Amino acid sequence: MKRLIFAAFLALAISLIGGPGLSSAANDDLSLQHIRNATIKLTSGDTTFLIDPMFAEVGAYEGFPDTYRSWLRNPLTPLPMSVKEILDDVDAVILTHTHLDHWDKTAQDALPKDIPFYVQNEEDAKAVRGHGFTNVRIMKESDEFGKVKLDRTATQHGSKAMYADPDLGKALGEVMGVVFTTPGGKKAWLVGDTIWFAGVDEALAKHEPNVIIVNAGGAAMSAEKYKDAPEIIMDKEDVRKMVEKMPKSDVVAIHMDAINHMTVDRKDLAQYVREHGIRDKVLIPFDGEKMNF
Amino acid sequence: MKRLIFAAFLALAISLIGGPGLSSAANDDLSLQHIRNATIKLTSGDTTFLIDPMFAEVGAYEGFPDTYRSWLRNPLTPLPMSVKEILDDVDAVILTHTHLDHWDKTAQDALPKDIPFYVQNEEDAKAVRGHGFTNVRIMKESDEFGKVKLDRTATQHGSKAMYADPDLGKALGEVMGVVFTTPGGKKAWLVGDTIWFAGVDEALAKHEPNVIIVNAGGAAMSAEKYKDAPEIIMDKEDVRKMVEKMPKSDVVAIHMDAINHMTVDRKDLAQYVREHGIRDKVLIPFDGEKMNF
Repeated sequence: MKRLIFAAFLALAISLIGGPGLSSAANDDLSLQHIRNATIKLTSGDTTFLIDPMFAEVGAYEGFPDTYRSWLRNPLTPLPMSVKEILDDVDAVILTHTHLDHWDKTAQDALPKDIPFYVQNEEDAKAVRGHGFTNVRIMKESDEFGKVKLDRTATQHGSKAMYADPDLGKALGEVMGVVFTTPGGKKAWLVGDTIWFAGVDEALAKHEPNVIIVNAGGAAMSAEKYKDAPEIIMDKEDVRKMVEKMPKSDVVAIHMDAINHMTVDRKDLAQYVREHGIRDKVLIPFDGEKMNF
Repeated sequence: MKRLIFAAFLALAISLIGGPGLSSAANDDLSLQHIRNATIKLTSGDTTFLIDPMFAEVGAYEGFPDTYRSWLRNPLTPLPMSVKEILDDVDAVILTHTHLDHWDKTAQDALPKDIPFYVQNEEDAKAVRGHGFTNVRIMKESDEFGKVKLDRTATQHGSKAMYADPDLGKALGEVMGVVFTTPGGKKAWLVGDTIWFAGVDEALAKHEPNVIIVNAGGAAMSAEKYKDAPEIIMDKEDVRKMVEKMPKSDVVAIHMDAINHMTVDRKDLAQYVREHGIRDKVLIPFDGEKMNF
């Protein structure tokens, strides 16, 4: 009888103390693994998203024309692990846009063709279906996969002056950002390939993300006419601005070192965040590094 | 006349406020640039030391025999800049020992033959003179170069069991650590290739360094007989121990990623220090990164 009472008390204690705590922790589980460049994996609970897969070997492609250091071949750095290892636990793919540094032939060949695959619009859906994928979905403004809520955010992949040039505007094209919300309510924002524009402030105010993943390499055009504002994605000053706006969030800086047109590399950013006293707010992952939030 | 009085006041103000402050800051100046692997530059004021130069291209040498992953060719990663850039401002070389991952033919060919060159003992002095260098000095227990004080520290480049094997003991050999003290009194300790042994605690107690540079890759032998304690340099647990012992110091972790026998890489260590809540105490530089202290 004493044993029975003890067991009942134990069960009660576990349900009161351990139970809700554990369940809330599990619902809040959020981790990120940086693969290379803009390719990352985001995991919440038992759901893992692969984002912007680009798996090419070093030097597979010509540099982007009319951009900074266009004579360099992409990618500049190798993958930190085998493609098989990368794909091991992936449940769905999210493609923010189809530029070569986010989606390439090597990834197209490696991924299972029936994997759930989110794209931003009909044009990209058509392209990805053309690459043989059979389970392609256009992400809704507010969507969900498994237990993870997905909210789209707006981007601007270059200056207004660049978009005013029809050819360059078309080449820069559209990109989506995505806010991932765990069942517990933790939010990670994949900002996407964008400069800082009004939509960034709006998304911060609307979503108040706990983790902000910034494409921070300061990729730049090389043309003389854009020399005063050559960048088409965020850079180290934008990382600092993000920290100033969201001092309680973790800022994870990616999309550096691997592609010709990046003007900021990880060592530059690491020096910069130390000099500006914001090293504790900014995470700059090594290739392959996993981070739990 | 008013102008003259104003100028006199200004000069007085500068001498009282700016003068001593600036001078003390200059005397305390200490910066480190991580090149690759164990190769770093340490600068105090206008004096720059190049430490353990190994400049080979990727894959130039066979892996170290009888070590972890001996089938890989060294180095595994490229230099982050040209050798010319690395050597640009170097005033003296310090060689902790002559193992190939600290001193190689490419560095021997690149360095000016008359550069002041510190080694640990007569054997290494003979070797380096044999490589053509004409200004080779055996570092004294307490020495100085320019305005920088140099104090030697002891090391143990493997377990006692390893040193009990005559062949392996000879191969592991001797290594020196060095404490660099700026004119202002700031101290950086280059711990060197060593496991944690009594001499490490003694050096910490004696010197109380502000900056501790740990060779943290956990390089390991592969033989079955050493499998319980295979490491010949420090690893991530030693980094944590260093932080616990010296909570007010900056620990800089190097000697990872570039050589076959490393069991810890930078992404592993980055994950580990975050998981253990000591990320703010441990700096893991990218190749080429500069840090001011």
